[in-house]
Amino acid sequence: PANAIPTPTAPPPDILRCASMELVVTDLAASRAFYHDVLGLVITEEDEQTVYLRSFEEFIHHNLVLRQGPVAAVAAFSYRVRSPEDLDRAVAFYTELGCRVERRPEGFSKGYGDSVRVEDPLGFPYEFFYDVKHVERLAWRYDLHIPGALVRLDHFNQVTPDVPRAIGYVEDLGFRVTEDIRDAEGTVYAAWMRRKPTVHDTAMTGGDGPRMHHVAFATHEKHNIIAICDKLGALRLSNHIERGPGRHGVSNAFYLYLRDPDGHRVEIYTQDYYTGDPDNPLVSWDVHDNQRRDWWGNPVVPSWYTEASLVLDLDGNPQPLTSRTDDSELEVTIGADGFSYTREGHEGKDHDMPSWKQGEYKLGHQL
Amino acid sequence: PANAIPTPTAPPPDILRCASMELVVTDLAASRAFYHDVLGLVITEEDEQTVYLRSFEEFIHHNLVLRQGPVAAVAAFSYRVRSPEDLDRAVAFYTELGCRVERRPEGFSKGYGDSVRVEDPLGFPYEFFYDVKHVERLAWRYDLHIPGALVRLDHFNQVTPDVPRAIGYVEDLGFRVTEDIRDAEGTVYAAWMRRKPTVHDTAMTGGDGPRMHHVAFATHEKHNIIAICDKLGALRLSNHIERGPGRHGVSNAFYLYLRDPDGHRVEIYTQDYYTGDPDNPLVSWDVHDNQRRDWWGNPVVPSWYTEASLVLDLDGNPQPLTSRTDDSELEVTIGADGFSYTREGHEGKDHDMPSWKQGEYKLGHQL
Amino acid sequence: PANAIPTPTAPPPDILRCASMELVVTDLAASRAFYHDVLGLVITEEDEQTVYLRSFEEFIHHNLVLRQGPVAAVAAFSYRVRSPEDLDRAVAFYTELGCRVERRPEGFSKGYGDSVRVEDPLGFPYEFFYDVKHVERLAWRYDLHIPGALVRLDHFNQVTPDVPRAIGYVEDLGFRVTEDIRDAEGTVYAAWMRRKPTVHDTAMTGGDGPRMHHVAFATHEKHNIIAICDKLGALRLSNHIERGPGRHGVSNAFYLYLRDPDGHRVEIYTQDYYTGDPDNPLVSWDVHDNQRRDWWGNPVVPSWYTEASLVLDLDGNPQPLTSRTDDSELEVTIGADGFSYTREGHEGKDHDMPSWKQGEYKLGHQL
Amino acid sequence: PANAIPTPTAPPPDILRCASMELVVTDLAASRAFYHDVLGLVITEEDEQTVYLRSFEEFIHHNLVLRQGPVAAVAAFSYRVRSPEDLDRAVAFYTELGCRVERRPEGFSKGYGDSVRVEDPLGFPYEFFYDVKHVERLAWRYDLHIPGALVRLDHFNQVTPDVPRAIGYVEDLGFRVTEDIRDAEGTVYAAWMRRKPTVHDTAMTGGDGPRMHHVAFATHEKHNIIAICDKLGALRLSNHIERGPGRHGVSNAFYLYLRDPDGHRVEIYTQDYYTGDPDNPLVSWDVHDNQRRDWWGNPVVPSWYTEASLVLDLDGNPQPLTSRTDDSELEVTIGADGFSYTREGHEGKDHDMPSWKQGEYKLGHQL
Ligand SMILES: [Ca+2]
Ligand SMILES: [Fe+2]
Ligand SMILES: [Fe+2]
Ligand SMILES: [Fe+2]
Ligand SMILES: [Fe+2]
Repeated sequence: PANAIPTPTAPPPDILRCASMELVVTDLAASRAFYHDVLGLVITEEDEQTVYLRSFEEFIHHNLVLRQGPVAAVAAFSYRVRSPEDLDRAVAFYTELGCRVERRPEGFSKGYGDSVRVEDPLGFPYEFFYDVKHVERLAWRYDLHIPGALVRLDHFNQVTPDVPRAIGYVEDLGFRVTEDIRDAEGTVYAAWMRRKPTVHDTAMTGGDGPRMHHVAFATHEKHNIIAICDKLGALRLSNHIERGPGRHGVSNAFYLYLRDPDGHRVEIYTQDYYTGDPDNPLVSWDVHDNQRRDWWGNPVVPSWYTEASLVLDLDGNPQPLTSRTDDSELEVTIGADGFSYTREGHEGKDHDMPSWKQGEYKLGHQL
Repeated sequence: PANAIPTPTAPPPDILRCASMELVVTDLAASRAFYHDVLGLVITEEDEQTVYLRSFEEFIHHNLVLRQGPVAAVAAFSYRVRSPEDLDRAVAFYTELGCRVERRPEGFSKGYGDSVRVEDPLGFPYEFFYDVKHVERLAWRYDLHIPGALVRLDHFNQVTPDVPRAIGYVEDLGFRVTEDIRDAEGTVYAAWMRRKPTVHDTAMTGGDGPRMHHVAFATHEKHNIIAICDKLGALRLSNHIERGPGRHGVSNAFYLYLRDPDGHRVEIYTQDYYTGDPDNPLVSWDVHDNQRRDWWGNPVVPSWYTEASLVLDLDGNPQPLTSRTDDSELEVTIGADGFSYTREGHEGKDHDMPSWKQGEYKLGHQL
Repeated sequence: PANAIPTPTAPPPDILRCASMELVVTDLAASRAFYHDVLGLVITEEDEQTVYLRSFEEFIHHNLVLRQGPVAAVAAFSYRVRSPEDLDRAVAFYTELGCRVERRPEGFSKGYGDSVRVEDPLGFPYEFFYDVKHVERLAWRYDLHIPGALVRLDHFNQVTPDVPRAIGYVEDLGFRVTEDIRDAEGTVYAAWMRRKPTVHDTAMTGGDGPRMHHVAFATHEKHNIIAICDKLGALRLSNHIERGPGRHGVSNAFYLYLRDPDGHRVEIYTQDYYTGDPDNPLVSWDVHDNQRRDWWGNPVVPSWYTEASLVLDLDGNPQPLTSRTDDSELEVTIGADGFSYTREGHEGKDHDMPSWKQGEYKLGHQL
Repeated sequence: PANAIPTPTAPPPDILRCASMELVVTDLAASRAFYHDVLGLVITEEDEQTVYLRSFEEFIHHNLVLRQGPVAAVAAFSYRVRSPEDLDRAVAFYTELGCRVERRPEGFSKGYGDSVRVEDPLGFPYEFFYDVKHVERLAWRYDLHIPGALVRLDHFNQVTPDVPRAIGYVEDLGFRVTEDIRDAEGTVYAAWMRRKPTVHDTAMTGGDGPRMHHVAFATHEKHNIIAICDKLGALRLSNHIERGPGRHGVSNAFYLYLRDPDGHRVEIYTQDYYTGDPDNPLVSWDVHDNQRRDWWGNPVVPSWYTEASLVLDLDGNPQPLTSRTDDSELEVTIGADGFSYTREGHEGKDHDMPSWKQGEYKLGHQL
């Protein structure tokens, strides 16, 4: 399309996986309590301004950085690459795209060696690193595990106005699309793309962007996710539960969405499927299929569609937002003029979408 | 109080447990498909007009009767009593209360011997039986179990206008209250009462009644309940999922509410606690506590409060409804003038009730 | 039979449930570490000599007492009764049986009021109490729960030489048999009997007695039991795992047997079935059925059959043992002359009992 | 070392993952019943001589081929490669190694296009393919899932006399070692190696070889594995359960070993960890660590060490076995002269290895 991001002639870095996110938080003690005391992420290292946390099966220094700052935002989406040479490739790739690129031999975070940060063509602060401090993999340390143990960082989710444009760029970066949400007119509402052979390392969600929609950690089993909810209830912190738990249509995973003390959204996620074959079949969902985002058809709460975190440029200032001009998923499904179905072709028949499936916006109009 | 149901001088029958419900359904094939093909209840016996089903750990003939009829309704809430003599006690107890009482030596359902049906003081069709045909307890038949195996009938839930009046009567009948929902002014919104040592054999929910709110079956584990949702999704029947899954505050059980093809509500339920000691502590919940009905604070969908099944008199005609005059739980919590809190005393502060916790009625007003 | 214990004319106390066990331990710090630090039982109260612990769903003061003493043994199997008057009944019942009976207004343990201890006709120290201090039921305190949370005391298991004789006595005490293990000649190897409507409050296992075979705590789900094993592995305490986890044939429950620092056996148990109806069907297992004790046919380790804890008389001295004269379950199944089958009638055919199912004694003979 | 297999100058094929195993079975109906009726693998296609089965999340034609034949054996360990060109690479790689190589444009199995089979330097029949028929991925078809649903082929396990020699060869083929079992003298007893980022696509177990030790399928959760055991019990097929369920030390996965009607060993496996980073830390286990193969220290049944399946050459004749000359894991651990510990340095102390942990061979000597 006309607005496509050009494909660089330089090869992309060989990305292994999403590896860490750096969150700027406005009350470090509150965020530390949420991610460590409540969710149980392990603190690898911390100082007055920063806390470095990891999941129980991780062997690199951290999967999450909490950094005290004036405005809640995301400072970096960090990917690990296969070799030190891939950092040179990242520099060349983004330089050719005309992006701002920074490289620091000592890394941008503690625990990292040489790393590269860029303001990518979509406005996101992407980071690449190979060299990293190894720490104890706590997989076997069941004496430390809690009922809701988070065992891996699974994926990022980004909000961007033009999803096909974003797909073109991340495919150039070496990602493959595994699933998407579309409509009959060809509008793409969201797409999931992977490097490691899971459903995704990141996803692009259509909306005003660049913003960070959520960061997701994996548990082993579904009961672990339920245990997180139960604990939040016991601590009278259930207001942090925004959506779920439920079963996704897209990805087939079991999920839960939380909001941290700054409103950053965290997903807890388990049991998607292997996608590592080059001909792994793309799964396309109809935006009107009421089971696409929740396989049980439970309504998505409006805030989940509308709220997301700011992202920072390399100077630490929030990136301005560009509005989505394509249709909004919320509006075409549960908004005043939208519709969804449980069984395609049964719209309006057979109790296909009873009141309890229509969601808050739809119901709101009826009151 | 002035309207109290008098305590009979005759002793009540010794009730063992809730044992079966008889549902009148308008499309027997559709209901059979729902309860047998989808939910996996085992058919003990059936004919043109009636299907008798049981759960996997049951050894009596049935826990559910589906009977073809003109209007969807509940024909009987059946309790098993300890001995044949308890049927005489039931007759005497209800006769003294001035209730209509019928007794049939051959029972009202197949598989039963002698039984007694009454129109109770609240207008509900209660049934009592002792003699029953034994069938194979399929507890060990894992070759027949499905991922969402229903293993026991757990409880009933009834809608009645005046909850304290209902409590007085069922206490006379030998039940004990285990939990309730109240407010600071003394209004009682709901109460749970038991014979067997679980949280309840039946519950009284304040509302226009007599109506049947739901019948509940138990699974062994939480993943069994999730499997039911996943299967409904796969069959494109997710519209039958009305509320949940979630964790109850009251009872501490994990739950799911479904609506059958006639709209009868079925709960799937697991993991409440032992209540068999005579001094088992009553747990009282504040109606404004947003975790009372869902420990995770997820909003209750309005239909769950407002819709329920008709019940039949002994001639098979629907009982007329009496309106609740006490405050409505829906109105005092999520209605226009109502409020709820996550942390008592934090109302309006600290993001105590973010938009995603306020529910559909509340949000509706904002649109 | 000739040796039957006579049925008293005095009615038995109305027993609610097994409620607590008092264990004498030789290293209180080690036992406290095992039951509290590792298994996570909650300490209600403790002093230099004694630790009182309870499970997460308990509201009475304790389910386990650890008392420092010179010889590892069981000082009391404690049952809760329905009313204070049942203590008088217990005194009368055991006095008529000619048993030694003690009554203490202040109870034998902290947290209890009036209680009665007896040396019962089988030689066991049984205790009865009604009055007890209430403490917080931690069912909703998911912030305190661990992955292997123990939620209830489920049952005791006693070793006694003559199982039918023991059955007669506990039936007089008001228990009902739910399952047993027999052979075609009529020998009874073990029996399970209940007051609360689960498979048992106690079981009688044939062997030299009186001894305590095990005390069992319940979890909610199977993964909780697996979590206990995983934690023991992480702490390099896997030597405490004696048998399992596995699925019982008898009771249909999922189980694990541990040995505490003194060798006292503790079972972790989940998901048996409701037995509260008076005509609950007895389940009898053939002693040669290799799935009776482990539904998966996994061999029972010999120590499980041969080792058990001493019990104390009311002076605190170990009771002498009487030898079993009936056949031993170990000998008739996996001993040199014993046999078992997977499919009755297939003995010796069709790979019915491959080497891996024959167990250590059987294999031992082949070496 | 002197006997090392030389590294070819030709690059290896780019292997994606273990993808299928072809088993020769002596009673096709019996094997079909085991893998399809009991374990629930889905039949993609079948004829008189052959059944092609897949797991619920697979999108390629099959993960298992059952072929009727005169002698139970393994005809192929099949790997999927990244591209058609990788088949040429496989031909060149093995030709340079002096191996017998066959290529068939139509594939060796139905559902495959072009494929290559070799008799590899260790004597195993390895197969490589890219082109394959796509079929429905049944991940979302929860209406078809059973309680013990097998969702992926996870790995192979091979028996070979000289583990370091095997490691050298498969590393040349592009595999990476993730874990191994060694002793202080440098003997290597087993090693796990991967292409996809799990703990392994295949493992090498020291013993007389070439033989197939087992093929492993994954479930989502631990309860799914327990459900398989429960079903086998219900069908009176528990004799097929050889070892487990348990938690592995190596891989940290939850496991179960079954034996099929021909004695082929099948593992059911869940929840190992991500290994995709190039510097993924090697985990080495001491052969005397009693938690290495079972994290709970439960004894390994001798048959698991000694029995394995024959493998076929490209003419369909069983490969002759070469004896292991290095120490045997069984002998150095639970054999007469072997020893194991729960806590290193505590051998013989502190009840470190009680009788129930010593296993059958050890106990056998004591009888
Ligand atoms: Ca309103
Ligand atoms: Fe996500
Ligand atoms: Fe309910
Ligand atoms: Fe037990
Ligand atoms: Fe394996």
